[in-house]
Amino acid sequence: MSEARLNTPISPFPSREQKQEERAARRAAVLRAAVRMFNARGFHATSLEDVATSLGISKPTIYHYLGNKDQVLLECVTIGLQQLLEAGAAARAGPGTGADRLQSFLRRYAEINMDDFGRCVIRTGEEALTPESVRRFRDLKREIDTAMRELIEEGVADGSIAPVDPRLLAFALAGALNWPARWHDPAGPQSPGELADLLVATLATGFLPR
Amino acid sequence: MSEARLNTPISPFPSREQKQEERAARRAAVLRAAVRMFNARGFHATSLEDVATSLGISKPTIYHYLGNKDQVLLECVTIGLQQLLEAGAAARAGPGTGADRLQSFLRRYAEINMDDFGRCVIRTGEEALTPESVRRFRDLKREIDTAMRELIEEGVADGSIAPVDPRLLAFALAGALNWPARWHDPAGPQSPGELADLLVATLATGFLPR
Repeated sequence: MSEARLNTPISPFPSREQKQEERAARRAAVLRAAVRMFNARGFHATSLEDVATSLGISKPTIYHYLGNKDQVLLECVTIGLQQLLEAGAAARAGPGTGADRLQSFLRRYAEINMDDFGRCVIRTGEEALTPESVRRFRDLKREIDTAMRELIEEGVADGSIAPVDPRLLAFALAGALNWPARWHDPAGPQSPGELADLLVATLATGFLPR
Repeated sequence: MSEARLNTPISPFPSREQKQEERAARRAAVLRAAVRMFNARGFHATSLEDVATSLGISKPTIYHYLGNKDQVLLECVTIGLQQLLEAGAAARAGPGTGADRLQSFLRRYAEINMDDFGRCVIRTGEEALTPESVRRFRDLKREIDTAMRELIEEGVADGSIAPVDPRLLAFALAGALNWPARWHDPAGPQSPGELADLLVATLATGFLPR
C-alpha cells in the first residue's frame, strides 16, 4: 500500500452523519418515485415492484426504507399535508389584513396542490388508506381547514373580507384550489405560480363585474 | 277453475310494455344500489356480490341487467354526466343575461354533484375505468366544460360577467362545485339546494367586500 493511500484523510467508512444523510436521500428518492407513479397510474394500479424497478432497486429495499405500500402512501400524503400546514402557519404570521394573509395562503395552497405530494393528497380517497391512516389523514386535513377558516374569520373581523359563513367559504375556496390537482398539466403553458395567482384573484373578486 | 277466474280481464302474462317497464325498474334499482356502495366504500372495495346481496338477488342477475363491474361503473358515471349535460342545455335555453343563465346552470350543477350519480362522477378517477370507457368519460366531461365555458363567454360578451379567461373561470367554478361531492353530508343540516345557492352566490361576488 502506498504512503499516500495510508495518509489519506478521508476514511472509506462513512461517518454516522454521512449514513444518515444517505439514508434520508434514498428515502426521499423512493418517495418521489412512488408519489409520481401513484399520481400517474392511481394507487391501486401501482405496485412497489414497479416503483423499485424505476429506481433500479429491489422491493425489499423499499420495505427497508419505508415499509409496505400503505405506509408509503401515508408518508406521501403526510408530506403534502405538512406542506399545506406550513403554508398556513407562514401566512398567519405574515403582514397585512386578514384578506391579504388569506390570499397569500391560498396562492401557496394552490401551488402545493399542483406539486407531487399535494396532488397525491387530493387524489387519494380515504378508501385507499388503512383505518388508522384515515384518522391521521383527517386530523391533518382538519388542521388545514381550521387554519383557512381562522384566516377568513380574521378578515371578516377586520372588514377586509365580506361577511360570509367562514365554513362555507373555506369549502368553496378549497374546492376551487384542489381541483387543479386533477386538471393542471405540469407540461402546459401556465406555471403553477401563475395559475395560482389568477385563480385566487378570480375567487377574491367574483365573476360578476365590480 | 271458477267462472270468475276464467273471465278475469287481466292476463297473468305480462305485456311487452310491462316487461320493458319491469326491466327498466330492476336496472334502475341495481344502478342505485351500486352507485351508493361505490360512493360509500370506493369502487375497488365494492364487489358486485355485495351489491347483489343488498338487493336480495344473485350476481348473475346483475350481469344480466347491466354487465360486469366496469360496465356498471360506466353506466353510473354516464347517468351523472347526462344529468349535468341536461342542466347545461336547460340553462342555455333559459331567460336572462349570460350571468343569470350561468348561475342557474351552476346551482343545478352543484346539486347534481351532491346526488348519487354526480357524486360518483366526481369520485371516480380515470384509473378505475377501462381505456375505452375513459374516452367516453372524457368526451362527456368535455361537453360539460364547453357548455360552462360558452355560458361564461356569453356573459362576458353581454357585460354581465367580468372580463376573465373563460377557461380558467370554468375550472375554478367546477372545482368549487365539485368539491361538495367529497364533503357534503346528505344527513347534515343544509340541503343540497340551499348549499348550492350559497356557494354560487359566494363565487359570483367573491370574498372581498363590494
